[in-house]
Amino acid sequence: MKIAAYLDRGRPAVGIVSSDLQSVLPLELPELERPRGALPVVELLASGTPMPATGAPVALDAVQLLAPLPRPRRNLFCVGKNYHAHAKEFAGSGFDSSAKSGGDIPAAPIIFTKVPECVIANGESIVVPAEVSTAIDYEAELAVVIGRGGRRIRKQDAMDHVFGYTIVNDVTARDWQSRHQQWDMGKSFDTFCPMGPWLVSADELDGTRTQLRCWVNGELRQDAATSDLIFDIPTLIETLSAGITLFAGDVIATGTPVGVGIGFKPPKYLQPGDVVRIEIDGIGVLENPVR
Amino acid sequence: MKIAAYLDRGRPAVGIVSSDLQSVLPLELPELERPRGALPVVELLASGTPMPATGAPVALDAVQLLAPLPRPRRNLFCVGKNYHAHAKEFAGSGFDSSAKSGGDIPAAPIIFTKVPECVIANGESIVVPAEVSTAIDYEAELAVVIGRGGRRIRKQDAMDHVFGYTIVNDVTARDWQSRHQQWDMGKSFDTFCPMGPWLVSADELDGTRTQLRCWVNGELRQDAATSDLIFDIPTLIETLSAGITLFAGDVIATGTPVGVGIGFKPPKYLQPGDVVRIEIDGIGVLENPVR
Repeated sequence: MKIAAYLDRGRPAVGIVSSDLQSVLPLELPELERPRGALPVVELLASGTPMPATGAPVALDAVQLLAPLPRPRRNLFCVGKNYHAHAKEFAGSGFDSSAKSGGDIPAAPIIFTKVPECVIANGESIVVPAEVSTAIDYEAELAVVIGRGGRRIRKQDAMDHVFGYTIVNDVTARDWQSRHQQWDMGKSFDTFCPMGPWLVSADELDGTRTQLRCWVNGELRQDAATSDLIFDIPTLIETLSAGITLFAGDVIATGTPVGVGIGFKPPKYLQPGDVVRIEIDGIGVLENPVR
Repeated sequence: MKIAAYLDRGRPAVGIVSSDLQSVLPLELPELERPRGALPVVELLASGTPMPATGAPVALDAVQLLAPLPRPRRNLFCVGKNYHAHAKEFAGSGFDSSAKSGGDIPAAPIIFTKVPECVIANGESIVVPAEVSTAIDYEAELAVVIGRGGRRIRKQDAMDHVFGYTIVNDVTARDWQSRHQQWDMGKSFDTFCPMGPWLVSADELDGTRTQLRCWVNGELRQDAATSDLIFDIPTLIETLSAGITLFAGDVIATGTPVGVGIGFKPPKYLQPGDVVRIEIDGIGVLENPVR
């Protein structure tokens, strides 16, 4: 099932997208819960509550999609340098000249965060904050959304805690990421987390082996299989939950493959007017203009 | 004014602590808002809404204090290596052997985060997660709570955006902080953010020049003036808000001075049975046992 958050004549709603992607069936959620997008649905299902009833279908092209989690319950967890070829391009870019992010291939998962308020929807603009940075880069990523929470989740049980998947563009101000050593700030600028187009449940997609592609202005930049992650999804969940209780609706952006802007010589950073298009098989397309 | 969140006969309440610290005047907030602690009060005042009315005083020793922000609105922003002598002890501890956190004195603020759910109250236990780490360290810190939010806040205007101050113990699993390069995970384990005892408004305390002390089992370990911050509060607010919109209730833990456990040879990490007591002049005492 694909859960979409959207505006229907200006009012927040949450619904199930039809398999032909032509319509959406609105879920009968309390009015107050609807601005939270798919989050109340994930929480209900994770707690064993049955799915809410649905109303009459609405044409998908008559509504305005929101991010499936318009404001995640806390900062998104994100994974750095989690594909081999990307870790090498990153090292080769000179970013790691002081070795401060640990050289080529990390020995343990690198986890940083993005603030919930930098999430934007499919179609919304990534804003280059030209006064403070023009070294703005894209990072196409598969994002895992946690269903049933927990602590000390073992690898062999981890996939039972995955509710589903969506696409995230982990937009980054490279100069801030480097200058401030810890990455959260340069990863959290306003509009720096396009997410969507919807949330696909794990019964419909095996996120551990799907294909991810990213184009900038129609030029294919990234093309990788999620099976190539250095630290796979069960390892990420085991590591994160070793000391931190995970909750329904937590987001883990699993890292980006080779082909980001900083990997080119000279770097190909995003410019106003550019369009970033990310596609993950089994999910769909997340496309955002840059301004 | 000191705003406290507490349980009164098991029910969440928010109130103003009397100047003799003997009683608390409960604020007439909607029932649903009370579990959010001081956050709705900060939001109301930041938006220009008058202070809610107060009810009859309750003896302070008859209530159970909660953290003033029991669950902050998003991950807390925290500053690394923001006192000169601490930056040097940290470098000297061997933590920085690979220079991966950038050597002695940072050239720009280092910002990482802690998840909101690791906040605990004065008196609650810091839990050593012995299965995954025993290198658990304390870090006494002045925490700034943002009032009026904003983006691109200039240094000279920054103090107008400070609602007030509280104490935070930025508890850290040193092995996780080091092994995973980015610090968020080793800083976010359950119970790793004691906060309290209450929130003191900026009209009552100049947080830029007060004194902070920390004892472990009665032994004075940290004793410093907040005027010794490498990056002062206006600089932190200007830097954070350069790309990220700040909101009422955002927390910035400003960094810890010299005297943390990892600075000793051998390190003096926290053990079950220890008690960490932090005092900041003009705020009060935050004391937590370790188990």
